[in-house]
Amino acid sequence: MRLAFDLARRGPARGVNPQVGCVVTDATGTVIAEGWHRGAGTAHAEVDALSKLGSGAVPPGATAIVTLEPCNHTGRTGPCAQALLDAGIARVAYSVDDPGQHSGGGAQRLAAAGVDVIPHVLETEGEALLGDWLRAARLGRPFVIAKWAQSLDGRAAAADGSSKWITGAQARADVHRRRAAADAIAVGTGTLLADDPALTARDEAGALLPEQPVPIVFGTRAVPPGARVLAHPHSPVQCAGTDLAADLEKLAERGIRSVFVEGGPTLISALIAAGLVDEYLLYLAPALLGGPRTALGDIGVASIGDIRRLDIESVHTLGDDLLIVAHPKGNA
Amino acid sequence: MRLAFDLARRGPARGVNPQVGCVVTDATGTVIAEGWHRGAGTAHAEVDALSKLGSGAVPPGATAIVTLEPCNHTGRTGPCAQALLDAGIARVAYSVDDPGQHSGGGAQRLAAAGVDVIPHVLETEGEALLGDWLRAARLGRPFVIAKWAQSLDGRAAAADGSSKWITGAQARADVHRRRAAADAIAVGTGTLLADDPALTARDEAGALLPEQPVPIVFGTRAVPPGARVLAHPHSPVQCAGTDLAADLEKLAERGIRSVFVEGGPTLISALIAAGLVDEYLLYLAPALLGGPRTALGDIGVASIGDIRRLDIESVHTLGDDLLIVAHPKGNA
Ligand SMILES: NC(=O)c1ccc[n+]([C@@H]2O[C@H](COP(=O)([O-])OP(=O)(O)OC[C@H]3O[C@@H](n4cnc5c(N)ncnc54)[C@H](OP(=O)(O)O)[C@@H]3O)[C@@H](O)[C@H]2O)c1
Ligand SMILES: NC(=O)c1ccc[n+]([C@@H]2O[C@H](COP(=O)([O-])OP(=O)(O)OC[C@H]3O[C@@H](n4cnc5c(N)ncnc54)[C@H](OP(=O)(O)O)[C@@H]3O)[C@@H](O)[C@H]2O)c1
Repeated sequence: MRLAFDLARRGPARGVNPQVGCVVTDATGTVIAEGWHRGAGTAHAEVDALSKLGSGAVPPGATAIVTLEPCNHTGRTGPCAQALLDAGIARVAYSVDDPGQHSGGGAQRLAAAGVDVIPHVLETEGEALLGDWLRAARLGRPFVIAKWAQSLDGRAAAADGSSKWITGAQARADVHRRRAAADAIAVGTGTLLADDPALTARDEAGALLPEQPVPIVFGTRAVPPGARVLAHPHSPVQCAGTDLAADLEKLAERGIRSVFVEGGPTLISALIAAGLVDEYLLYLAPALLGGPRTALGDIGVASIGDIRRLDIESVHTLGDDLLIVAHPKGNA
Repeated sequence: MRLAFDLARRGPARGVNPQVGCVVTDATGTVIAEGWHRGAGTAHAEVDALSKLGSGAVPPGATAIVTLEPCNHTGRTGPCAQALLDAGIARVAYSVDDPGQHSGGGAQRLAAAGVDVIPHVLETEGEALLGDWLRAARLGRPFVIAKWAQSLDGRAAAADGSSKWITGAQARADVHRRRAAADAIAVGTGTLLADDPALTARDEAGALLPEQPVPIVFGTRAVPPGARVLAHPHSPVQCAGTDLAADLEKLAERGIRSVFVEGGPTLISALIAAGLVDEYLLYLAPALLGGPRTALGDIGVASIGDIRRLDIESVHTLGDDLLIVAHPKGNA
């Protein structure tokens, strides 16, 4: 299985499909074929490994060791479970169950056909390897990180709307690092029109970091012709925002596994109200603002019983600021 | 001086006047008299010590060692600086300068009359001994602690006003301990009428702690006849709140050195806007509420340049909640 993990890592770390590796051994345990998945539209790892052997060349008693449960789904490629059966594989060991609604069930199909199936081999390592792909696959949508900067009393700006800079340089640098780790970065049209953000991840000197998240704009108003986001290395994607869950599912279909939402208050409040935020990053400036410009608006809490409880994962000090990392209670 | 500190501690730890001790030694350094202050209206420590010697009995070359600069002020008692001069004391050593506008200047008066004055002996220990009396004397008013409980996004209640309990049992117990450490506890009439608080400091079982802060009500509306605060061990004091600084000075004149302000939002915001908060205790529940019930209202910040910056002294974990202890920036 460890060899299969190494093979998996040769595939692309981003995109619609996961990194998967496959090793075929003969009845003595000798490796006779290796395969891995090279990204959407190419052969799955099992088929890639079998192809190295040529048709009819799988010896009796062979085992396929795969990092992810063989799929049971006909997409751009046929179901791997069937390919393994057709090749005459006697035993299948795999690490992580396929969480897909359509693709799951491969293990059952194999077992029903008389194959000896050994599930959950080194499962924790297998899950770690699959990382944000697995997280998004289990959610059925990208993992949503909501980030905002506020004064201790929950304001995002002073009464006149001015807000540069509530938090300090270290907090801003931390935001850029976390932006770069996400597949996409999102804002509402309100923020787009008010602030004209570049939506790039930059280093302290302002230079682009090597990984750039795809910019997403939520809302129906048009992106104005001169908007800085149009100069982003990736073309911006616009979502209407009228059905946020459906929008997110569409983003997942494009291979986006995580969305870093930077605001503004209206978009973030709507995502919270819809129960679509998986991680909270609250940058707290040691300061008070008071007044009308709250960082969150209505999040659908009418009475104290509806309060949205969070589990605080960690509290960090970033210069003078605090960063609270939290998750919806029970979702950690 | 250490003996003088010990004598000082025999006096009352609360009230208008500080704890002060005085030792008189003869020219050889032998202690010939000890004195301390027993509270407002009684003799000051220097006079108390001198009285032990009888008139004309101070030997030549005697030294008075006092924990606080001898006063220069005729109040209910005469100025101590003059009493020391009249007694023929040759040398005065003291620890902490008298911060009083009216009472200060004793050291100068003594020096001008030819007495050898040695100021600031063990000053740090002297300041620690004077504690909250010194803090209030330097401010010219009680030290004001503003406490509130809020969700991470700065709300004190859900949209319908319900707020029991935003924070947990450990946070509430911490509040009661801190209440007991203050001389007074204050609320606005809004909170008084809405919540009918007892304004007592209680232990986990609900029993009264031995020290009870004086309850203060800010606002012009009357305390209703059946209000629970009327059953408080101390009679409540009402302040109009139209001139908060003047109200606080009046409380200081009654011997109140610290006020623990529990809300509501209107009163606390007015105190912050007036620059009258010395310490912030923010109890943060790991939860989001959104909506209109902000823990602070308008605090007079029109533009980001007016932001009220704080120095965070500490962040504590109290069960699931966080407590942030902070001070106005530069005031720590
Ligand atoms: N302190 C911070 O961390 C921070 C961060 C970002 C922004 N800001 C500030 O926030 C202000 C902008 O705030 P904002 O709240 O107006 O902007 P916003 O949340 O960026 O945009 C609001 C817009 O989002 C769109 N939207 C998409 N899906 C939605 C849904 N399900 N529900 C509601 N709206 C949805 C709507 O656009 P359409 O009307 O086009 O359909 C709506 O008008 C700016 O002043 C900015 O500087 C502060
Ligand atoms: N989460 C928390 O930590 C917390 C704590 C306390 C209260 N609360 C909630 O807050 C609500 C009450 O809030 P509130 O803001 O109405 O009450 P409040 O701040 O307790 O009282 C407001 C009143 O304070 C008086 N006041 C005195 N000096 C003032 C000044 N300089 N400026 C303005 N007002 C001054 C005024 O009374 P007059 O009109 O009589 O002159 C004013 O109407 C209640 O629902 C309570 O449950 C929450």
